[in-house]
Amino acid sequence: MTQLRVTVWGENVHEQTSKAVGAIYPTGMHTTIADALNQDARIKARTATLQETDHGLTDTVLADTDVLTWWGHAAHGKVDDKIVDRVQKRVLEGMGLIVLHSGHHSKIFKRLMGTSCDLLWREAGERERVWVCNPGHAITQGLPPQFVLEHEEMYGEPFGIPNPDEVLLIGWFQGGEVFRSGVTYRRGAGKIFYFQPGHETYPTYHEPLVQQILRNAVLWAKPEGVFKTGCQHISADKAPEPITASGASVH
Amino acid sequence: MTQLRVTVWGENVHEQTSKAVGAIYPTGMHTTIADALNQDARIKARTATLQETDHGLTDTVLADTDVLTWWGHAAHGKVDDKIVDRVQKRVLEGMGLIVLHSGHHSKIFKRLMGTSCDLLWREAGERERVWVCNPGHAITQGLPPQFVLEHEEMYGEPFGIPNPDEVLLIGWFQGGEVFRSGVTYRRGAGKIFYFQPGHETYPTYHEPLVQQILRNAVLWAKPEGVFKTGCQHISADKAPEPITASGASVH
Amino acid sequence: MTQLRVTVWGENVHEQTSKAVGAIYPTGMHTTIADALNQDARIKARTATLQETDHGLTDTVLADTDVLTWWGHAAHGKVDDKIVDRVQKRVLEGMGLIVLHSGHHSKIFKRLMGTSCDLLWREAGERERVWVCNPGHAITQGLPPQFVLEHEEMYGEPFGIPNPDEVLLIGWFQGGEVFRSGVTYRRGAGKIFYFQPGHETYPTYHEPLVQQILRNAVLWAKPEGVFKTGCQHISADKAPEPITASGASVH
Amino acid sequence: MTQLRVTVWGENVHEQTSKAVGAIYPTGMHTTIADALNQDARIKARTATLQETDHGLTDTVLADTDVLTWWGHAAHGKVDDKIVDRVQKRVLEGMGLIVLHSGHHSKIFKRLMGTSCDLLWREAGERERVWVCNPGHAITQGLPPQFVLEHEEMYGEPFGIPNPDEVLLIGWFQGGEVFRSGVTYRRGAGKIFYFQPGHETYPTYHEPLVQQILRNAVLWAKPEGVFKTGCQHISADKAPEPITASGASVH
Repeated sequence: MTQLRVTVWGENVHEQTSKAVGAIYPTGMHTTIADALNQDARIKARTATLQETDHGLTDTVLADTDVLTWWGHAAHGKVDDKIVDRVQKRVLEGMGLIVLHSGHHSKIFKRLMGTSCDLLWREAGERERVWVCNPGHAITQGLPPQFVLEHEEMYGEPFGIPNPDEVLLIGWFQGGEVFRSGVTYRRGAGKIFYFQPGHETYPTYHEPLVQQILRNAVLWAKPEGVFKTGCQHISADKAPEPITASGASVH
Repeated sequence: MTQLRVTVWGENVHEQTSKAVGAIYPTGMHTTIADALNQDARIKARTATLQETDHGLTDTVLADTDVLTWWGHAAHGKVDDKIVDRVQKRVLEGMGLIVLHSGHHSKIFKRLMGTSCDLLWREAGERERVWVCNPGHAITQGLPPQFVLEHEEMYGEPFGIPNPDEVLLIGWFQGGEVFRSGVTYRRGAGKIFYFQPGHETYPTYHEPLVQQILRNAVLWAKPEGVFKTGCQHISADKAPEPITASGASVH
Repeated sequence: MTQLRVTVWGENVHEQTSKAVGAIYPTGMHTTIADALNQDARIKARTATLQETDHGLTDTVLADTDVLTWWGHAAHGKVDDKIVDRVQKRVLEGMGLIVLHSGHHSKIFKRLMGTSCDLLWREAGERERVWVCNPGHAITQGLPPQFVLEHEEMYGEPFGIPNPDEVLLIGWFQGGEVFRSGVTYRRGAGKIFYFQPGHETYPTYHEPLVQQILRNAVLWAKPEGVFKTGCQHISADKAPEPITASGASVH
Repeated sequence: MTQLRVTVWGENVHEQTSKAVGAIYPTGMHTTIADALNQDARIKARTATLQETDHGLTDTVLADTDVLTWWGHAAHGKVDDKIVDRVQKRVLEGMGLIVLHSGHHSKIFKRLMGTSCDLLWREAGERERVWVCNPGHAITQGLPPQFVLEHEEMYGEPFGIPNPDEVLLIGWFQGGEVFRSGVTYRRGAGKIFYFQPGHETYPTYHEPLVQQILRNAVLWAKPEGVFKTGCQHISADKAPEPITASGASVH
């Protein structure tokens, strides 16, 4: 069996600078996420971080990646635009992309959405209930109708995203807000899933149901084919139906 | 009656450098388009071009613009990224945007779509038939089931765009290709319409039915309201429902 | 000025059989809704009810209706299929449709959606907070970021609807559920808005902000044009491009 | 390996009544389609026809079907509404559905779409070119950028369908028309693909590329999970968050 090749990208800043975060994720959030993914034998996940050369996302690594997951927060601005270009091209050509929590403001997510990706927020350790809007979707398999995260950062509507292909999860917050917490998109050949839970000071990525969603999502985002970028010129003599070229040209 | 304030942006390069183009559009494509729009008393269109300060798109001009139309081709790369940022923000906050023909590869369209916007192309002066997919839409009012452009540049599928909110027009080309020639999107509060016809060496923007579509499109794209960009912090004591903050923070 | 012609359809059963409902809506919910719409001089609303001939929806009435609003609950099954056919045809050809609350299970809404339109529910007089997902949309103009209904019936996800064109409102319920409370669709030429609040034993349609949404919605759903139903045969000699017919036929 | 269980439904009327059709499909179109599907070892296809009890679609058969394909034309009206109800329920709960050619006017497709599904048509044996709009989608794998059907019935826009989740194929017709020839939808848990080619008097389903699309489509439409229909009542004491019921009730 060919395993799905997943690269788990982590900004890896808070884990180094905050004792609270380091205590929850001593080897980094990316490691916890990769370990969770690797519980499924169909998945082979490795990690890459901001601090590595090319942020760990060289052409070689990306060519060898079926699905990329992305968590960032404090250092979105430190991600090199050339790497963002590279990741975008790979997504459009077919690589899956899972964007996590504060990744809503990452360069790559804003690039692919074309919108502000702005939202309301509050860091108060409040309770979130995550509701499933379509229990028959690949990403929601194995979930109950809803599940509780006792402590999450509130992300609230309005969420500045394009209308999703599917709203799979909606979050209810103790403080009164709501959020489209799990949404899908296709861009080019690439399948994209944004998932809201995952604040760095809470142990969200240790939650079994969150881990189930991550595994479901990377399997769902598996490339289906290739959609090469680039415009193609079809000369008049190569037109499918015979035509005679006419008219002026600026070329 | 308050008129719709439209700014017609023209790259204005081919008109200056190509005799063929200059002969068709002696005062520039942007002037022809603005004149066509101003035939409707509900519209007040003015022009702006690449060569002006800020490409004619100062904050003042954009604040005074309800709908912007965009034609560019040879000089996409000369459009300042800061102006692209500015236009994108205005669209997300509510300004309508009509992207014309080779504007499919403009920075602003690619920015808002998040995709390659690539396509097939052939400049052979062939016949295009433009078909209406929804005769009941605001943008297609006054059109017959299909109309002919005797000479157009072929743009062909696959067109590297996100799935549109609506496919309103599909083009049939003599040489055998097809194209989604009229598609709509909403991004933030802004309404966006992409329209394929309009190659610079053919008199497309002098065609009455094309002019009708342009007038329909700017009226359709009229701002409905404002969606301010920016994330908003809601402190725990301002939560709609009473909560007690808990947990660690990296802030 | 031509006024928008709105027909407010009411099932008008609970108002007659329940003292509680009759006390809140002594002249019927439909009358309260029509009065709310008529506060805008651009709208001319009248009513129609189940008990009238053809449920008040004769061909003449529908031909004279730009936008229809629909509230039903106890008697969905009593609505004649022929009237449902008639309303569906008018929507596809261009009439706007606003479906209210328990109208989620009306024949006409299920017919136009093609899905179950099922949901979770609880009648406990709990608090709902209605959040705006796009403050720049025509239907949300004049609304604050969220508003409270102190007593509403809980409608919860999963809501068995096709992915909406736009999710404009999401409801937060005191008991812990969430719901896509305001969603839009286009079907044929017709614009459709579903709005969740409006349980018969609470005074929801007396709420000024709810009334504002209803007025916004009918103005948004105004017909843009006509999309006639019916398949059209184009004979070979009427083909836009000359062809010679060939091959067998079963006709 | 568990095989995908496909039921190929055929109206099986023209094959019996028309010599031309019988000559092309001597054992019925359904048999040709099932044989094409069974060329892939991952698929196990059987057939069902209008003339069988329950049209061959008993509860047992449907429970044992992962994906249903549907071809009908002359006898849409003879399909029992109870069977349509049954198939719709299964689709909403997760079964895939592939609707072929003149199935655009089948009861089940119109039921699931909620629209007219009307179109233009001409039976003249003209040439169709089928273009791929997304070469990176599961359904278009193995296809060239476009392929030719020397003889097909023209189906032309406007096609009275809801805006698709994805437009994967667009048809170019020799006579000048265009058509959205391959479109996808999700309704409930079920994945739906409509595919235009397949007129009964031409050997379309013997074409290798058409057979490839059919195999791709049924594999793509594989159920991902179950979305049970039915509304669920959540009593006040079972609310996720503690509430006290209040207010009147009509129940």
